[in-house]
Amino acid sequence: MTRTSISHPWEELKRLAELGDASLLHQYFEGLSGGEAARALSRLSSELQTKVLTTLEPEDAADVIEEIPEAQAVDLVEHLSADDAAAILTAMPSDEQADLIAAMRDDDAEAILSELSPQEASEVRTLADYASDVAGGLMVTEFLSYAETATVGDVVNALQSGAEEYAGYVVQYLYITSERGSLVGVLPLRDVVLARPSRAVAELMVSEPLSVVDSTPLDDLSDIFDRHELLGVPVVDSSDRLVGVVKRHDVEEAFAERADSDYLKSQGIVGGEELRSMPLWRRSRRRLSWLSINVILNIAAASVIALYQDTLTSVIALAVFLPIISDMSGCSGNQAVAVSIRELTLGLVRPGELVRVWTKEVAVGAINGLVLGVIVACAAWLWKGNAFLGLVVGSALALNTVFAVSIGGTVPLILKRFRVDPALASGPVLTTLTDMCGFFLVLSLATLALSRLVG
Amino acid sequence: MTRTSISHPWEELKRLAELGDASLLHQYFEGLSGGEAARALSRLSSELQTKVLTTLEPEDAADVIEEIPEAQAVDLVEHLSADDAAAILTAMPSDEQADLIAAMRDDDAEAILSELSPQEASEVRTLADYASDVAGGLMVTEFLSYAETATVGDVVNALQSGAEEYAGYVVQYLYITSERGSLVGVLPLRDVVLARPSRAVAELMVSEPLSVVDSTPLDDLSDIFDRHELLGVPVVDSSDRLVGVVKRHDVEEAFAERADSDYLKSQGIVGGEELRSMPLWRRSRRRLSWLSINVILNIAAASVIALYQDTLTSVIALAVFLPIISDMSGCSGNQAVAVSIRELTLGLVRPGELVRVWTKEVAVGAINGLVLGVIVACAAWLWKGNAFLGLVVGSALALNTVFAVSIGGTVPLILKRFRVDPALASGPVLTTLTDMCGFFLVLSLATLALSRLVG
Repeated sequence: MTRTSISHPWEELKRLAELGDASLLHQYFEGLSGGEAARALSRLSSELQTKVLTTLEPEDAADVIEEIPEAQAVDLVEHLSADDAAAILTAMPSDEQADLIAAMRDDDAEAILSELSPQEASEVRTLADYASDVAGGLMVTEFLSYAETATVGDVVNALQSGAEEYAGYVVQYLYITSERGSLVGVLPLRDVVLARPSRAVAELMVSEPLSVVDSTPLDDLSDIFDRHELLGVPVVDSSDRLVGVVKRHDVEEAFAERADSDYLKSQGIVGGEELRSMPLWRRSRRRLSWLSINVILNIAAASVIALYQDTLTSVIALAVFLPIISDMSGCSGNQAVAVSIRELTLGLVRPGELVRVWTKEVAVGAINGLVLGVIVACAAWLWKGNAFLGLVVGSALALNTVFAVSIGGTVPLILKRFRVDPALASGPVLTTLTDMCGFFLVLSLATLALSRLVG
Repeated sequence: MTRTSISHPWEELKRLAELGDASLLHQYFEGLSGGEAARALSRLSSELQTKVLTTLEPEDAADVIEEIPEAQAVDLVEHLSADDAAAILTAMPSDEQADLIAAMRDDDAEAILSELSPQEASEVRTLADYASDVAGGLMVTEFLSYAETATVGDVVNALQSGAEEYAGYVVQYLYITSERGSLVGVLPLRDVVLARPSRAVAELMVSEPLSVVDSTPLDDLSDIFDRHELLGVPVVDSSDRLVGVVKRHDVEEAFAERADSDYLKSQGIVGGEELRSMPLWRRSRRRLSWLSINVILNIAAASVIALYQDTLTSVIALAVFLPIISDMSGCSGNQAVAVSIRELTLGLVRPGELVRVWTKEVAVGAINGLVLGVIVACAAWLWKGNAFLGLVVGSALALNTVFAVSIGGTVPLILKRFRVDPALASGPVLTTLTDMCGFFLVLSLATLALSRLVG
């Protein structure tokens, strides 16, 4: 126990929460990073967490909520009363409001929405209805738009009078709309600086600007920001009306979150998110739903061994090599899975290119299988002094390595094609197939060479 | 083979490369995303890749190079002649130049640097010497700075006269420096728009602005951008001189790349990057360096089984359950590893908090171990009609699940503390320890209950 030597920021937070002083709490969070705030909050009881959020001014509480992981934010807000939650929500930007509401239990979300003004509630509802990985779900509704009939002077005046309110806005671009509300141009703020006040906005703006419809998926948005040095892209609805702006930052954040989530899924964390501050039963249930599928698949794969009990009884040394072949083939296959998932995410490979991926993997698998096979063969030979035992287990591992990388490389592409999440399902499919094939190879080769192995 | 039904953008690229028309090639890449460009290029022979890059105008070639994954970009540039590479490099922003040079083989990098002007070469060298995950390695040196004695009018004039050149700059903030070159203030472009030309910059600027020293690590930068709504933060050297600007975009990109790289490492891709367009030998060698460590550890773990050959010969059914226990414990342990690596990255847990993580994991492990143990026990009982066999394998799996999550949860923290990369090393450590413990538990429990299991 090194308790005394570590600084515990949550002990300070606990003290401040019990004190109940809004400005001291505000100061405390000012000095913390998002990770540190999340860490300190997760150590408090849910009563004290509630006390912290209700003691802070709603704006400050909103800042804290925005900085911590979403899963934890949802937990915290669900513990608040609906009117406290609504006050904090009102102080958040539109996209964060919508994300939080969309991630909450329906009854909690409804309770909070009913505390908002009808107009605000309807805006949040509209945003929360979008999937979280399309332009509509990623956009903010805080943007600056002006009529196409305005002059530069009008724009500067409008900017000056609203300077305070626009603090959180995307102000690098001003959007110019027609009378019907459809987007007709974009005016970079830079150009406003450099232009005479009397000039018409319509002359100065970039007309036919780049825009996306609200249903544009994350991958396409990411491509757009890859290709264009823009901080934000305007979003229009199906009737071409300007409805929001999707910011580069939010697209990159969503893309990074998906990579994190894929990693957790590939290791069997269903939903792609677990924090140890979540309730025990939820953590256990999510992990278990993946494990229990795996245990059934594992039993099915191991039943191949049961078919060869006679061979095993004659050459008990084989039992030592079965787990080695299972583990090593799993390792080789998972390397291929990881490269395929990464190349799919980067768009370097399409789900149809099975033959290309397979050819590339077989070459690597043949080299690596040969090396691993020789290592295991030598180990078997040295241990039992029987070269045939080495030959059996070594060639089984070599062949199964080629099989494992073939399966590992192609399965993510096939799953993607059938719209199954490759990060979640590739591992179990791979392990089951390579285990079955590996056990079959060792034990059937051993059965063929039985006379050379016994005695 | 579905060859005819898929569109092959690289066949078009091949045709255009052979044609050798710079403007057609430029048009072609204009319409592609980064992923598509990378995918098309990776399908060409290295001669044609070189032809594409040398046919394009250096500015256009630089745009292509910036959009594709760095590992592929390095390969492409290393195949160019030093003067072609230097021409393209000159057209890139400073941070991309430095990243590329830092990732190349030393002799290739030197050959290219010797083609640059001495001043440019020295700038690239300075940037490339920074680690890629500190402010100095992430910053760009393209920024706008003005003397503290300037007026708003001076700044607007300077901006107007250089408008063309500043296209790729961070223009949202103007940096104000003292005569000695040290940073004294920041002036948001917004404020320039709203101010009278006669006002002094020194009155208007935010003095004592936020800045970071060039050695600030990625995690701290990410925290700063988390906490402040800024697009860029000025970077100063140890003598307080303004040397660059680190952009939010670059910090987020580096953070996302680290998550991707951690995922690949956790699956045994050494170096955290592999594209199937890389040479076969490099791919094979990197994967093999991880596999060969694993096979040795696997053999060591399986040698536990060799100690119990008599028990195994008496109860051959146990051989079926050894791989199941090994695989399932691996799955449970890897879930704990994934959550720990994620919480370490988010800063939610510190390497010292072993006891807290262990307590949280033991609770989940106990529940999940019980469920999995009962499933496997039932399978064994049903198969062999022997309740004691079920009891032995079920309780071994239950106990080993608790062991696996304890190891899986804490090993990443311990590795991090000793500055070993947890993403790369956690898996092998986990698998070896849980296999050993699992085999020992099944076989020693079976040895104790041997009289009940035989017959």
